[in-house]
Amino acid sequence: MARLNSFYLAPEAWAPPYLLEGAEAHHLLKVLRTPLGARVRLFDGAGRQGVFLLAGAKKNRAYLQLEEELAAQPRPGGVTLALGWNKAARRGALLEKAVELEASGIAFWQAARSQGALPAVPKPSWTEKSAQAAKQCENPWLPDYHVVSGGAAGLAAFARGFDRCYLLWESEAASELIGLDDLGAGNVLVALGPEGGITDDEARILTSAGFTPRSLGRRVLRWETAALHCLGLAFHARQRSDFAETT
Amino acid sequence: MARLNSFYLAPEAWAPPYLLEGAEAHHLLKVLRTPLGARVRLFDGAGRQGVFLLAGAKKNRAYLQLEEELAAQPRPGGVTLALGWNKAARRGALLEKAVELEASGIAFWQAARSQGALPAVPKPSWTEKSAQAAKQCENPWLPDYHVVSGGAAGLAAFARGFDRCYLLWESEAASELIGLDDLGAGNVLVALGPEGGITDDEARILTSAGFTPRSLGRRVLRWETAALHCLGLAFHARQRSDFAETT
Repeated sequence: MARLNSFYLAPEAWAPPYLLEGAEAHHLLKVLRTPLGARVRLFDGAGRQGVFLLAGAKKNRAYLQLEEELAAQPRPGGVTLALGWNKAARRGALLEKAVELEASGIAFWQAARSQGALPAVPKPSWTEKSAQAAKQCENPWLPDYHVVSGGAAGLAAFARGFDRCYLLWESEAASELIGLDDLGAGNVLVALGPEGGITDDEARILTSAGFTPRSLGRRVLRWETAALHCLGLAFHARQRSDFAETT
Repeated sequence: MARLNSFYLAPEAWAPPYLLEGAEAHHLLKVLRTPLGARVRLFDGAGRQGVFLLAGAKKNRAYLQLEEELAAQPRPGGVTLALGWNKAARRGALLEKAVELEASGIAFWQAARSQGALPAVPKPSWTEKSAQAAKQCENPWLPDYHVVSGGAAGLAAFARGFDRCYLLWESEAASELIGLDDLGAGNVLVALGPEGGITDDEARILTSAGFTPRSLGRRVLRWETAALHCLGLAFHARQRSDFAETT
């Protein structure tokens, strides 16, 4: 597929008549002044994408006609990060780069040292942020967003169903560096605390629930640096498998 | 050394009477209201650090008395990134994380597709930004900053003296993924283009000069994501050696 301008259409809106509204329509019609009949790429962030023609425009609504839909692929395995909730000014950059580095999911959990209260449900702005990032890197998958209540016990329950779970922990108990083999295959959950770290209680609950302690190294990384670094290692591990398969 | 508040004192000012001025003095005296006689940590970003006592304060000047200087260590080998100059709104975050991930150096070079003009010399704000980041992660080394003029030919000249040089390039010629072994030992230079990539001419000049083409994978990463990801891989490779030595 040639490089076309990309627009996000949520999975629940992915049906004829394909209709873009709001910011996406504004961008297509007003910013890019796309002419009628022009080709664009739509993606739903859940693996579906296709080539569409701009068939009509009315005020801030763009009607699109499907020309060719790419076969939906099953979601590849990947890494879900469980991040201790933070009043993080840098959450936006993190969500953006999580798409580039192909995170499967981002779960926020309420840790003892979390600052601020976790929202009840994932914020729509998280998906919007990810969708914008997905346009440039053409990742057809957005991370699944989760909000995990119930503290460490809630996170332990959320962890069921993953192939492997790791706890990034600045402690002597994490005597092994997290490795590419930990992250490179299957559905993996990696938990991090908030800024300030996890409490001993939280560590006990998570390790009892099967989380394996791992270290990122002997340097105190900021919350979002640790998160991105971990996603980068996972991305590299999976790219390594792809390169091995095709060369 | 216990976790003390850290302050940056440039190498050229590292001599008795140890004197903090400007933003560092303001932070020590006004923000933290450090009492006379209290212990703080000073570092010069070039491997020197020590424990000092606050001996005197006069307006916005703090006089410090050396209690214990740690032996200066030779700079460890590491990765220097050569980044195509960009009008990058995100340069700040990149410089900050480069310190956390222990970059040896950051060189900006003027590429054909660079936006904006390279400054004549490294900006003092780069070092200031790095020094702030170094306080939290306690890395006693700041990256060396370089401004490389003369385009790709200038970068080829700058590359002399490094043990290995790689060019991250989205091209069929970069058929191998950059690996931990590429980055994990010695003084390594890794070149990236600006947003928009390098030209064929630039690639030819650099590969002729001994840069080995490498890929970061099959996904178009943003400029600063690619840079951080590469530093993360190098950090991991070097942490891996440290862990192997001590366990």
